[in-house]
Amino acid sequence: MSFKITILGSSGAVPAYGRMPSAQFVEVQNHYFLIDCGEGAQIQLTKYNLYLHRIDHIFISHLHGDHYLGLMGLLFTLHLNRRATDLHLYSHKGLDEIIITQLKYSKSALNFKIIFHTLTPGVQEIIYEDKQLTVETIPLSHKINCSGFLIREKEKPRRIDKTVLPEGLAYTQILALKAGEDILDENGNVIHKNQMLTLPPRKSRSYAYCSDTQYYENLLSQIKGVDVLYHEATFTTEEKDKADETMHSTAAEAGMIASKATVGRLLIGHFSARYKELTLLRNEAMQHFANTSLAVEGETFQIEE
Amino acid sequence: MSFKITILGSSGAVPAYGRMPSAQFVEVQNHYFLIDCGEGAQIQLTKYNLYLHRIDHIFISHLHGDHYLGLMGLLFTLHLNRRATDLHLYSHKGLDEIIITQLKYSKSALNFKIIFHTLTPGVQEIIYEDKQLTVETIPLSHKINCSGFLIREKEKPRRIDKTVLPEGLAYTQILALKAGEDILDENGNVIHKNQMLTLPPRKSRSYAYCSDTQYYENLLSQIKGVDVLYHEATFTTEEKDKADETMHSTAAEAGMIASKATVGRLLIGHFSARYKELTLLRNEAMQHFANTSLAVEGETFQIEE
Repeated sequence: MSFKITILGSSGAVPAYGRMPSAQFVEVQNHYFLIDCGEGAQIQLTKYNLYLHRIDHIFISHLHGDHYLGLMGLLFTLHLNRRATDLHLYSHKGLDEIIITQLKYSKSALNFKIIFHTLTPGVQEIIYEDKQLTVETIPLSHKINCSGFLIREKEKPRRIDKTVLPEGLAYTQILALKAGEDILDENGNVIHKNQMLTLPPRKSRSYAYCSDTQYYENLLSQIKGVDVLYHEATFTTEEKDKADETMHSTAAEAGMIASKATVGRLLIGHFSARYKELTLLRNEAMQHFANTSLAVEGETFQIEE
Repeated sequence: MSFKITILGSSGAVPAYGRMPSAQFVEVQNHYFLIDCGEGAQIQLTKYNLYLHRIDHIFISHLHGDHYLGLMGLLFTLHLNRRATDLHLYSHKGLDEIIITQLKYSKSALNFKIIFHTLTPGVQEIIYEDKQLTVETIPLSHKINCSGFLIREKEKPRRIDKTVLPEGLAYTQILALKAGEDILDENGNVIHKNQMLTLPPRKSRSYAYCSDTQYYENLLSQIKGVDVLYHEATFTTEEKDKADETMHSTAAEAGMIASKATVGRLLIGHFSARYKELTLLRNEAMQHFANTSLAVEGETFQIEE
């Protein structure tokens, strides 16, 4: 099952050089999530042939414009394309008022229902859970309430080892094996030990999205060992004063967080409009964490099982 | 002095095929106006090297998302780029609440002042006036309150005819000539008749922007004889039912309005996402009004003096 992240926007507050504001499309085990939804996100989704209409959950990290201003346009497009299924929106307080105010003046009643979920500032909380995965918030340190998101697969079932599987097992017995149970005869005696017929489960993968934040070690314990970390890297160290003033991170700081959290891979983004070329930012992060990539428009990052 | 219209977006409600939502940049006698401001307008302005920071007046026809959702992003970009001068916004009731709500949750105080001007529904009114020109509203017929905009140059001064101008005239005498006055001696006797030394003024140009509206003959008298008319043409006649239902116009209807108003030139736009190719729409309008152009992204239409 795939777990992949497609970058729709890599720009900081002001779009520049064809870079668009923050938005990411995440496909994980047939779930389609949108994380942040900057201006133009609907256009980017279409450009990269992504499943606009399959998105059921949209996670907004905070209410600075470059992280949510594409949402109203996306909602109107879904409406005009006759979406009927519920849409879940997760955000800090205010997004409901922003959306309802705009619907009021456009005299629009959407065809579908929006279910608003309000995030709790400064608290780690599980905001979405099903059989396959959880999404939890990552408290960040920014000018206004801001939360990252951590998507984790749950522990997966053991896998049938087809090379040793005896013939003639019933479907219920196969299910029992997948659930980790032994196969018993009618008297309750073990015929096949589970471990003889199954392989360990595939690993549970995880993705942490951290934007926007100043350097913030409090998040280390929560994101420890994730497969992929996206961390904002608005500035180079030369602009450290500007980073502090605006409560953003430098690329070096993003690298330090990745290194200290011993993640598998680091993606950096949210680049200031002052940088035409991004290699300097990548190089700076790589001084602290080698496996760093630029999270730029149209790039897809796959997490292997 | 130039009078030109650059198209930033030609799309109807749903962006498609690279077409963006409605927005136009109008430069007239060193005034820089934005008419409508669909999602991505700031990106389009930058793409076409237009003077983002010179815009002092933004006119929003109505509060459907595809006509104003680019505004917040533009405001934040102007703020981050340290704009200090006032910005005038003209719209039907609600835009102030929409903007103020979003500023509240982003905890942003803009560096510059916004001056909101609320349009009166269903009424022709002059909403901007200075020595060179006026902007007046054009009441349209749409699902919600919607006004077009008519930009008219005022009558211009007569022009000095340099081929016959006597030497030695004082600067005040030149100004008097431009103002249409004769040149007198100290006793009040005419030395030079104005008409002998001047040419008629250049013509006063006009541009009418009509989006969104169903076919609406009430606007004919107001736009009679304008140099350039932009009229929405969301559908072809084959989709006339859809046009009626959504209170939009067909391309044929846009052509009929242009013909009945005997305008100089017709621009059509606001194309439905169902049309990949636009030639059918242009051809349909041209059956009623030959001088029709597609108002598509990046095209600039100049009105000659």
